[in-house]
Amino acid sequence: MSLYPHFNFNITHRSSSSRARLGLLETPHGTIKTPAFIFCATKGAIKGAFPQEMKTAGTQIILSNTYHMMLQPGGDLVEKMGGLHKFIGWDGPMLTDSGGYQIFSLGYGSVASEIKGKRMNHRPKTMLKITEEGAHFKSYIDGQRLLLTPERSIEIQRQLGADLIVVLDECTPFHVDKSYTERSMHLSHRWALRSLAEFQRCNDGRQALYGIIQGGVYEDLRQQGAAFVNSHPFFGHAVGGSLGASKDQMQAIVEMTLGMLSPERPVHLLGIGGISDIFNGVEQGIDTFDCVHPTRLARHGGALVKAEHWTRYSGSGGEHINLRNKIYRDDSRPVDESCRCSTCQIFSRAYLHHLLKAQEMLALQALTLHNVYFMNQLLQAIREAIRTDSLSTERKKWVKADL
Amino acid sequence: MSLYPHFNFNITHRSSSSRARLGLLETPHGTIKTPAFIFCATKGAIKGAFPQEMKTAGTQIILSNTYHMMLQPGGDLVEKMGGLHKFIGWDGPMLTDSGGYQIFSLGYGSVASEIKGKRMNHRPKTMLKITEEGAHFKSYIDGQRLLLTPERSIEIQRQLGADLIVVLDECTPFHVDKSYTERSMHLSHRWALRSLAEFQRCNDGRQALYGIIQGGVYEDLRQQGAAFVNSHPFFGHAVGGSLGASKDQMQAIVEMTLGMLSPERPVHLLGIGGISDIFNGVEQGIDTFDCVHPTRLARHGGALVKAEHWTRYSGSGGEHINLRNKIYRDDSRPVDESCRCSTCQIFSRAYLHHLLKAQEMLALQALTLHNVYFMNQLLQAIREAIRTDSLSTERKKWVKADL
Repeated sequence: MSLYPHFNFNITHRSSSSRARLGLLETPHGTIKTPAFIFCATKGAIKGAFPQEMKTAGTQIILSNTYHMMLQPGGDLVEKMGGLHKFIGWDGPMLTDSGGYQIFSLGYGSVASEIKGKRMNHRPKTMLKITEEGAHFKSYIDGQRLLLTPERSIEIQRQLGADLIVVLDECTPFHVDKSYTERSMHLSHRWALRSLAEFQRCNDGRQALYGIIQGGVYEDLRQQGAAFVNSHPFFGHAVGGSLGASKDQMQAIVEMTLGMLSPERPVHLLGIGGISDIFNGVEQGIDTFDCVHPTRLARHGGALVKAEHWTRYSGSGGEHINLRNKIYRDDSRPVDESCRCSTCQIFSRAYLHHLLKAQEMLALQALTLHNVYFMNQLLQAIREAIRTDSLSTERKKWVKADL
Repeated sequence: MSLYPHFNFNITHRSSSSRARLGLLETPHGTIKTPAFIFCATKGAIKGAFPQEMKTAGTQIILSNTYHMMLQPGGDLVEKMGGLHKFIGWDGPMLTDSGGYQIFSLGYGSVASEIKGKRMNHRPKTMLKITEEGAHFKSYIDGQRLLLTPERSIEIQRQLGADLIVVLDECTPFHVDKSYTERSMHLSHRWALRSLAEFQRCNDGRQALYGIIQGGVYEDLRQQGAAFVNSHPFFGHAVGGSLGASKDQMQAIVEMTLGMLSPERPVHLLGIGGISDIFNGVEQGIDTFDCVHPTRLARHGGALVKAEHWTRYSGSGGEHINLRNKIYRDDSRPVDESCRCSTCQIFSRAYLHHLLKAQEMLALQALTLHNVYFMNQLLQAIREAIRTDSLSTERKKWVKADL
């Protein structure tokens, strides 16, 4: 019997001009059309949006972070309440990560900074030490000393009950040298085998396990990392490890890495959610993305917009407008007149500007729904463009210029 | 031609055992079944709920505070954006207050404390002085010195464009003596006449003006206050001034006051929203209530519940349960199994407890929707009970014991 009797990844179309592809990722909670974006319900809730609102905005899949859920309310409690789907009221596909990621990055820089190699000079304070056994850390809630092993991560992810789950790895920072990266990769491979063994021991067919490809910025290590994941029965692959210090380096490493992976398995790119980054990733063969960016941006007053709406106030990264800006004080237009999201149907930029100035939480709810809808529209447009082999034309509608 | 061509208050049923009554209050934005509860969109937004969610939860009417809206974003801006209904996306009936209330109470105690006579020993710092001309105060946003006159209040309320608007009055604190109360009442009457004159000068038939009955805790002054409002063409009456220092005194003053008012005009009770207080008010002939309580309580983790769900953890005032309490940590039941609100359909007490502990804003959204639905259900049950003359039986379902 297959390790994954209730899962399937069916590639329905391949681009003739890039590695981009369309797929159907079947899970016990529904089928995801890929490429797809996964929204972050970090602590078991999308900040500012109900499950039904996420569905209405076109969301296919969300993720929850094992690190946060294991500390509060705990895997035992979630299992007792019938699992994460029931507990949080989301009946669609769901992913959980291993928990390791936050141990290594929380308390120091943002998750994105960590992946992208920024600002990471030493271990965060909540991280105590890494041993062969696992990651020793302090709870950010009460300072309790805890150990997360590969087996424990799988056990907790089994209690949570997400459809897609991930092996524990060491998230290697960018600044370390090649020998550290190599040693770390081998540790992560041993942890991956322990994760897989624990997964197989308890497998009830309701979950599918992703392996993580390591190797940092080094091609020969990426080759070893790819050979490792390809040769073990993971359902899918996540691109992990350092992706370098710049967008160009990230793109080069993702491209190199994707060329090495089994082409029939789904590939997830961890923590990437910028519009141009998603176009790049799709062209390199990425099937799923996740990032806090769309929902976090909303909570800072930012609304994602297509290229035509970008202004000189859109900020260095572009891709959004900031409704706190006083230029929107008497702007009676919606964020985007062509957007069909619930926010753009009823609220003007002027009203959103007012709500932000007045510190009304409704602003964050409204912008969250807009950004979620926007991302789902973006991925839908990308899927259509893959089908018609017109990704580069489509890209121009969403990205003003390559940054 | 009537001052109020697009308004009507039609009393459709009178209780045989109390002053309770059923009415239909017609406005240009719809008809309100009374008794009704008015939810507070203080700064032009219900904290945590979209207009459509308020509608779905059975809400008939909301209010916005002129004081907050005049300071940010300003009456001019709202008028330019097409009025408050359009600006905030609420197409149902709406009320604005005069703005005076917050000048007198903001920066000191809560609005409820002011009405109920608690904690009010001196003028708040943002209040500068009261003159015949109006109320001089400092903006809580930028410290700017401003003057709110009766004419200006009406002008701003016309810009905002709510259906029901209110004359400017001095909100007399509880601690003042009878001679202050009397002088203040006469000042408020002169302001009311100026408000009415300004209202009549600009009246386009789209708004209806409420007068406020003053007189504090003194029966002879209440008689004068009632004679004043009854003799002028206000569409409705609001019970203002101090209602005393205790619930009993409040009840006695409301009862006394209601006996003096024109029985054919709708009567609003300012700032009262407790369940038992609403039953009392209804029996005394109150048609509409407003209070921040249901939505503010939600933001503190409180869910309104019927008497059967009260626990010893319900707090001194009873009437709700606090989901922050650890007894709910593994309680898989909804807040109320018989409640049909969207929150009780999908979320358990355990999940709400988790969200509150994790400081997730979704908890506040979910509890807000529950409390709004609850209040609308309460008022619907009260209307049905008036129709069948069974208010005292109905009361027992909602109020555990008279406090």
